[in-house]
Amino acid sequence: MAGQLAQGEISLDRFLKELARPRTADLGEVQLDLDRSRRCGYPEVVFGEGKTVATLAKIFRRLLATGADAFGTRIGPDAAADLVREFPAGRYNPVARTFCVPAGVGDNSPPRPQGRVTVVTAGTTDLPVAEEAAETARWMGAAVSLVADVGVAGPHRLPSHLETIRAADAVVVVAGMEGALASVVGGLTGAPVVAVPTSVGYGASLEGVTALLAMLASCAAGLVVVGIDNGFGAACAVARILGPNPGR
Amino acid sequence: MAGQLAQGEISLDRFLKELARPRTADLGEVQLDLDRSRRCGYPEVVFGEGKTVATLAKIFRRLLATGADAFGTRIGPDAAADLVREFPAGRYNPVARTFCVPAGVGDNSPPRPQGRVTVVTAGTTDLPVAEEAAETARWMGAAVSLVADVGVAGPHRLPSHLETIRAADAVVVVAGMEGALASVVGGLTGAPVVAVPTSVGYGASLEGVTALLAMLASCAAGLVVVGIDNGFGAACAVARILGPNPGR
Amino acid sequence: MAGQLAQGEISLDRFLKELARPRTADLGEVQLDLDRSRRCGYPEVVFGEGKTVATLAKIFRRLLATGADAFGTRIGPDAAADLVREFPAGRYNPVARTFCVPAGVGDNSPPRPQGRVTVVTAGTTDLPVAEEAAETARWMGAAVSLVADVGVAGPHRLPSHLETIRAADAVVVVAGMEGALASVVGGLTGAPVVAVPTSVGYGASLEGVTALLAMLASCAAGLVVVGIDNGFGAACAVARILGPNPGR
Amino acid sequence: MAGQLAQGEISLDRFLKELARPRTADLGEVQLDLDRSRRCGYPEVVFGEGKTVATLAKIFRRLLATGADAFGTRIGPDAAADLVREFPAGRYNPVARTFCVPAGVGDNSPPRPQGRVTVVTAGTTDLPVAEEAAETARWMGAAVSLVADVGVAGPHRLPSHLETIRAADAVVVVAGMEGALASVVGGLTGAPVVAVPTSVGYGASLEGVTALLAMLASCAAGLVVVGIDNGFGAACAVARILGPNPGR
Amino acid sequence: MAGQLAQGEISLDRFLKELARPRTADLGEVQLDLDRSRRCGYPEVVFGEGKTVATLAKIFRRLLATGADAFGTRIGPDAAADLVREFPAGRYNPVARTFCVPAGVGDNSPPRPQGRVTVVTAGTTDLPVAEEAAETARWMGAAVSLVADVGVAGPHRLPSHLETIRAADAVVVVAGMEGALASVVGGLTGAPVVAVPTSVGYGASLEGVTALLAMLASCAAGLVVVGIDNGFGAACAVARILGPNPGR
Amino acid sequence: MAGQLAQGEISLDRFLKELARPRTADLGEVQLDLDRSRRCGYPEVVFGEGKTVATLAKIFRRLLATGADAFGTRIGPDAAADLVREFPAGRYNPVARTFCVPAGVGDNSPPRPQGRVTVVTAGTTDLPVAEEAAETARWMGAAVSLVADVGVAGPHRLPSHLETIRAADAVVVVAGMEGALASVVGGLTGAPVVAVPTSVGYGASLEGVTALLAMLASCAAGLVVVGIDNGFGAACAVARILGPNPGR
Amino acid sequence: MAGQLAQGEISLDRFLKELARPRTADLGEVQLDLDRSRRCGYPEVVFGEGKTVATLAKIFRRLLATGADAFGTRIGPDAAADLVREFPAGRYNPVARTFCVPAGVGDNSPPRPQGRVTVVTAGTTDLPVAEEAAETARWMGAAVSLVADVGVAGPHRLPSHLETIRAADAVVVVAGMEGALASVVGGLTGAPVVAVPTSVGYGASLEGVTALLAMLASCAAGLVVVGIDNGFGAACAVARILGPNPGR
Amino acid sequence: MAGQLAQGEISLDRFLKELARPRTADLGEVQLDLDRSRRCGYPEVVFGEGKTVATLAKIFRRLLATGADAFGTRIGPDAAADLVREFPAGRYNPVARTFCVPAGVGDNSPPRPQGRVTVVTAGTTDLPVAEEAAETARWMGAAVSLVADVGVAGPHRLPSHLETIRAADAVVVVAGMEGALASVVGGLTGAPVVAVPTSVGYGASLEGVTALLAMLASCAAGLVVVGIDNGFGAACAVARILGPNPGR
Repeated sequence: MAGQLAQGEISLDRFLKELARPRTADLGEVQLDLDRSRRCGYPEVVFGEGKTVATLAKIFRRLLATGADAFGTRIGPDAAADLVREFPAGRYNPVARTFCVPAGVGDNSPPRPQGRVTVVTAGTTDLPVAEEAAETARWMGAAVSLVADVGVAGPHRLPSHLETIRAADAVVVVAGMEGALASVVGGLTGAPVVAVPTSVGYGASLEGVTALLAMLASCAAGLVVVGIDNGFGAACAVARILGPNPGR
Repeated sequence: MAGQLAQGEISLDRFLKELARPRTADLGEVQLDLDRSRRCGYPEVVFGEGKTVATLAKIFRRLLATGADAFGTRIGPDAAADLVREFPAGRYNPVARTFCVPAGVGDNSPPRPQGRVTVVTAGTTDLPVAEEAAETARWMGAAVSLVADVGVAGPHRLPSHLETIRAADAVVVVAGMEGALASVVGGLTGAPVVAVPTSVGYGASLEGVTALLAMLASCAAGLVVVGIDNGFGAACAVARILGPNPGR
Repeated sequence: MAGQLAQGEISLDRFLKELARPRTADLGEVQLDLDRSRRCGYPEVVFGEGKTVATLAKIFRRLLATGADAFGTRIGPDAAADLVREFPAGRYNPVARTFCVPAGVGDNSPPRPQGRVTVVTAGTTDLPVAEEAAETARWMGAAVSLVADVGVAGPHRLPSHLETIRAADAVVVVAGMEGALASVVGGLTGAPVVAVPTSVGYGASLEGVTALLAMLASCAAGLVVVGIDNGFGAACAVARILGPNPGR
Repeated sequence: MAGQLAQGEISLDRFLKELARPRTADLGEVQLDLDRSRRCGYPEVVFGEGKTVATLAKIFRRLLATGADAFGTRIGPDAAADLVREFPAGRYNPVARTFCVPAGVGDNSPPRPQGRVTVVTAGTTDLPVAEEAAETARWMGAAVSLVADVGVAGPHRLPSHLETIRAADAVVVVAGMEGALASVVGGLTGAPVVAVPTSVGYGASLEGVTALLAMLASCAAGLVVVGIDNGFGAACAVARILGPNPGR
Repeated sequence: MAGQLAQGEISLDRFLKELARPRTADLGEVQLDLDRSRRCGYPEVVFGEGKTVATLAKIFRRLLATGADAFGTRIGPDAAADLVREFPAGRYNPVARTFCVPAGVGDNSPPRPQGRVTVVTAGTTDLPVAEEAAETARWMGAAVSLVADVGVAGPHRLPSHLETIRAADAVVVVAGMEGALASVVGGLTGAPVVAVPTSVGYGASLEGVTALLAMLASCAAGLVVVGIDNGFGAACAVARILGPNPGR
Repeated sequence: MAGQLAQGEISLDRFLKELARPRTADLGEVQLDLDRSRRCGYPEVVFGEGKTVATLAKIFRRLLATGADAFGTRIGPDAAADLVREFPAGRYNPVARTFCVPAGVGDNSPPRPQGRVTVVTAGTTDLPVAEEAAETARWMGAAVSLVADVGVAGPHRLPSHLETIRAADAVVVVAGMEGALASVVGGLTGAPVVAVPTSVGYGASLEGVTALLAMLASCAAGLVVVGIDNGFGAACAVARILGPNPGR
Repeated sequence: MAGQLAQGEISLDRFLKELARPRTADLGEVQLDLDRSRRCGYPEVVFGEGKTVATLAKIFRRLLATGADAFGTRIGPDAAADLVREFPAGRYNPVARTFCVPAGVGDNSPPRPQGRVTVVTAGTTDLPVAEEAAETARWMGAAVSLVADVGVAGPHRLPSHLETIRAADAVVVVAGMEGALASVVGGLTGAPVVAVPTSVGYGASLEGVTALLAMLASCAAGLVVVGIDNGFGAACAVARILGPNPGR
Repeated sequence: MAGQLAQGEISLDRFLKELARPRTADLGEVQLDLDRSRRCGYPEVVFGEGKTVATLAKIFRRLLATGADAFGTRIGPDAAADLVREFPAGRYNPVARTFCVPAGVGDNSPPRPQGRVTVVTAGTTDLPVAEEAAETARWMGAAVSLVADVGVAGPHRLPSHLETIRAADAVVVVAGMEGALASVVGGLTGAPVVAVPTSVGYGASLEGVTALLAMLASCAAGLVVVGIDNGFGAACAVARILGPNPGR
């Protein structure tokens, strides 16, 4: 902003007005980012881990007060039961551990990305991470297909889902153990492929580190990776890819 | 393909014809992938590390014979000097260590992705990796801007390049040490951000592992990461993002 | 001491007197260091982890008997409830998990360091570590400001606290995930910055190792680092920085 | 042996005779194992790394004196040149870095395993390790096919070699980077699959550790793994599998 | 298959028929691999970890419906109690944590591998992993001997079991701590030796990583290794070794 | 600045003037930070690793043009010889590998920190890192004492230097191997102690990681740590500690 | 033995007699080593971790039946309560978690090592490991002194115990965090020093790995190290050092 | 000393005299420990790595001036050639890389430990480390036997050396790869066994870390370990074990 002002790209008037707009809600132990929609295309998401129900409720109330719907991840079933009592319109997905409260009348949520996403998992036990990705992507506006349990141990299972994969604007591959599914999918489609390593598997999976390293070292060029079990991050990456880029 | 046939999506005729098409060139120690354009939108790229000049030349000749231009990475200056003698039209970038030979008359290179990419580096010593990304992205059809040496140690250097960053359809952030620039850029744009950790830095950078982990753990949601020093992979990821997705 | 005697810097008389002074209280399984104030400027602090309530109470009693107030860290809520019964003047901070008992009448605590400290956290979940640092620093005599939840994911949140940061004689930055806030703060102030990595975050944070490495590899020169979740250690470092250095 | 004697399974006479047979040749810094054929089905192989040419020649001479042919691995080109001068019948494979001297007239090499082995590599740069495996397996008596450069980055390259893979009594998969080829091959054949991780690849391959972990965590059940770059060990494993087991 | 068709090895008729055969049972969150017997010689095994009893029962029912017996691993005692109620013919091994339901009348299980396997453990605490290997191998058709607690700490214990080890067609060595038993057994038999590192032991065993690395670095050539605590994988490897290889 | 403007702490006039001041010198591949003195109290230091002599000379010229003296680290002897030819007033320290060019007439270097620093090394081989710290600290204005080779292997060597250590306003401890000297010094002085792990030592030192971890886990409370071999960073930390803090 | 027979060092008669002696008690899941006294100077010790009370009782009964007293480590309080009921003469140390049953009338325990051992701990929380070492060493015949809580954080606490340390024939140093006490003690005595790293400490102690590495890299020459928390192993090492060596 | 004075154990006179004795020779960059014989039973040994020939010569001259012979380790062949010219009586062992200069007439070397040491290696490539241990132990006064190349890959090679091993007062086992020889030797003798991991071996040996971990996790109780390739440290440990302990 200051740079834009210095280079004459914006007027001093607009600069000062912008400075006056509140961009953070001070909730004590939380500095809520009210500006994220403008910068990144979607409002701040509540990361539930390590927060009390009281703190979670306070954040949800404040987000809903902006007129947009509110969304949280990593919320355990006990906290969810309490939140549902306070926000009866909210929906809890116990596999994904996500909680979403629609904005209600007068929704002024920002425009969301448009596009098709296919979330693919190697095994059944990768589902919680895949569901977190799917729920987040849906909340952000994408049309999501979920294809579960098609890892390379049974290589004939993947081909029957190839069209669903190839039709997607972006693919999220969720896999633990050695993560080979990401390489295989990456070799079969030219769309962006976001790989999510999961902490699923026997001893040598090292709680996801093996899958993480394998995906990063993948010979399928152009594969990109997010952190272990980070389904939320994968969905955010997809939202960036599908656009619209609010910065443009 | 077989799945498509079984589900009646393609005719038996087309199926058999497709099977007959040569998709691999057998060069002895190399099985050249002639089908990559159809699958991924760009021809196979030559990974130069650990290959003799003779093998490199053989691959370049075969790729050029398909009528498309040919491109190689991780090619040292000595090998490059030999290759330039054989392919006088080729261009070697000694910083990026890439070698590109245009297809010449009758170029039937596949349509390439369209869009703007900004490659940002934290320091001067990140340049070789950034140049590899930039050269690869240019060869794939993108318009590339390179912004060097704007890491967070001097945080006032980044703002004057913010417009270049925000105008891009995709951003590649190349950073070693603690890789914080990726988090900062990720917080400032809603476009896709591909982070490339580099092996630059003092002892605790652990040859890029620190930057890699930091980028994966970034609090800037939606950041995606490729392997250490993998500028080529970042450019391929960008090509997937910019499309056109050949599978669709 | 012996060196000083040999070089004639202190008299034999003072040397022998000093030798006679009890410097350790033998409590059986604990050798209490009664000499720390003289050496380091503050009495020994009780590390609560792995100690029974009986042992904790014995130590607190012995420390209070020296006439100075007593302070403990890493004390769980159950142990704290017992301690409060025995030491009704004591104050327990359940977030920081610290317990402090004032010396009462005739306090002969040593002079404490003077100065302003700002403790900054990247997220809400970093608060327990930040509170441990803040409580310890306060007990040591410093004036402490706490700025929470201003990490780089929302980069506009930090600037409004810049003055608080720049006014401090020393800054403690508490951050998990990729720890980028430490680099950013380090680039914005010339005061000493002590970075504390926390074990907060998704899989690739590796329980604080990622933040630790990132802070050590930071491109913000002059950043110093303490161990993971070691809020107490950061406060001790600040006490050393603020002085007075008892050795001088 | 002693156990057999105690249980009456062998006669005291045979026991004492067996004790008298020299089983080790004392060459000073080397205790040559002359008994390995009896125990494992093939004579001791010379591990060339870190041995002088003089020591290598001494070992080869002693092995040839037993009437069987002699074989060495990890022998550099300079040492090989010297060895060829001393053993003109020897054959050096510069890619595999193996040196083999046939036993000549009156060969009393032990009977060797019989069977077909297919060695598969993911990339061209995996060839040295694959060649070490192939040369060793051939020396041990197996019929070896080598299929190079069919990694999952170009997934259509593998199918045309499927019959060669499925016809084998044992398969060795040599792959670096993320090692996904081992999982894929393991899912396509029911024969024993020995996976050899190689130290080939970009930064996140961690000099073979990534491929090693990925192969160990493979979802293709029954895959077995040997150490990084250990083509020799893979061939020995194959020899054990093909038998004849000398212990039976 | 497509490759075989293209090369004229199979008729178009057989190709189309094969395509029509259902090879996957879609159970919602599970894509059951009904084709594994044909590819690998034994039906899919149920990996119990992270699956609900409802899902487990659904899979067992579907597998039994194919007329073959069904087998699951990593099934806890509570889930087992529920499964036994539903499948009274099933047998639960609480040490191995395996559950097996025989196919009953009209068993059309595929032909199984034939041969003798000896499972050897270093200590008593390695038994759960060894039992998992033994139960799996038995289910697959092998004759299994189990020799427990003969690690190198008491080196005289092994010799009295040497004949059992040498009589086996394949040996599985299960060992934690430093895993030396695998090297010793590998030096005493020429049969295939599959080493399974276990997570048993004091601090420096690093939850099995030490045994894993030691087995991979073993000087006993031809030793092969599976993942930590992966008794199931070791049995699968043995099944591949004993054959019959269904691909041939 | 913008925050200060919004809160009325600075005038609009001063704000705009400040924006107009050039803070970065664009040297192509380098964005030179001309603003560091104002922010951190000392000008940018040239990090020599991976930079050509041409680039180094360009930076030195530009820094000297600001009227302050210029300083570089990690400069090899060959580059230094070239630089001395171009900057005859420069002084190269071959142990520290630093190069310093005084500003000459009209020096307008910023005021530097004042105070005494003692740099202590455990062994003789830690000297290069210690010298880098000492040279940097001297250039920044501190009075530096260097005490070498007083590690705990010979614990009687340290006492005779205790007065030098206790007289310092800040102590830098440079140690490899197990880094115990830092703990010992930390227990003997109340001044700030900055520990620098070095990559010196036998195999288990893991190129400095052991010393790094040991220093971070030190039981001497208040010890702070910088990256491996980062003598420069330690000196910067000392400069922050000695002040004057330019932000205040 | 066989070697001795072959070289005529022992008579055939003695050889056969020795072979007939039972050296292992087969208890089913346990192969009890009855020969350890002869080989190593003390009977087998029961490692309690992962064993049921029934198995523990069976082993204790069998060991007592040999006429020597019996000793177990890593036995939890619940198992101990059961064992005390069955073996009323037994003594349980709840800190060390050891259980010892004296042999009673007609003790034919082997002669034990003679000598003085001093066990030193850095902190109070290292006591369980130190007590395990002390109890084991006492059971083996040594005279044990225990000096607790004299770590380098309070360096004046150690000197008053120096005579106890210097009087010992062997010293065991038990320390967590950075383990510096081992280096310091190693520099102060010429007796054998066995260092035991413990898993005590804050985040960067990495559950004992930091102390382990630091002790291995110690600059105090001649320090030897056992595994993390392995107090038992340290006592065994001391028994070997004090002798008598039964092999001689 | 001060403690002894305070407790009346030594006279003030002796205390002051002792303080006056020079215990360190200040050679500039080296503080030579002249007191080590009194404390540890042998003079300081010169660690050659990273020291110039000039520094080495200066140290040797000063050590010889004390009337005792002087000894150095890790000295390369070039430095050795120079040293031999200056100290013609010196002897260089190019395998061990040690350099020893006898004291000449009037040797007042301290009394050295007495006893027999057997150094055992697993392979031929472990010899340099074993020779360093052997040379150091010999210089310290021990009678050394060296048994090379008897690793467990050929388990019949060890028995014929069992008497040499059992006759020793202390055994040093030098092994790379998986280090199993240490466990085996530890199970066969009751004497102290010092294990030295070496950086020898294929990829999964991880430059000695595998052998190190395996030795620490060894099931042979009482094994002690020194750092990777630290033959010198193993010899020092043996010297401590053999005594005489100068502190007593």
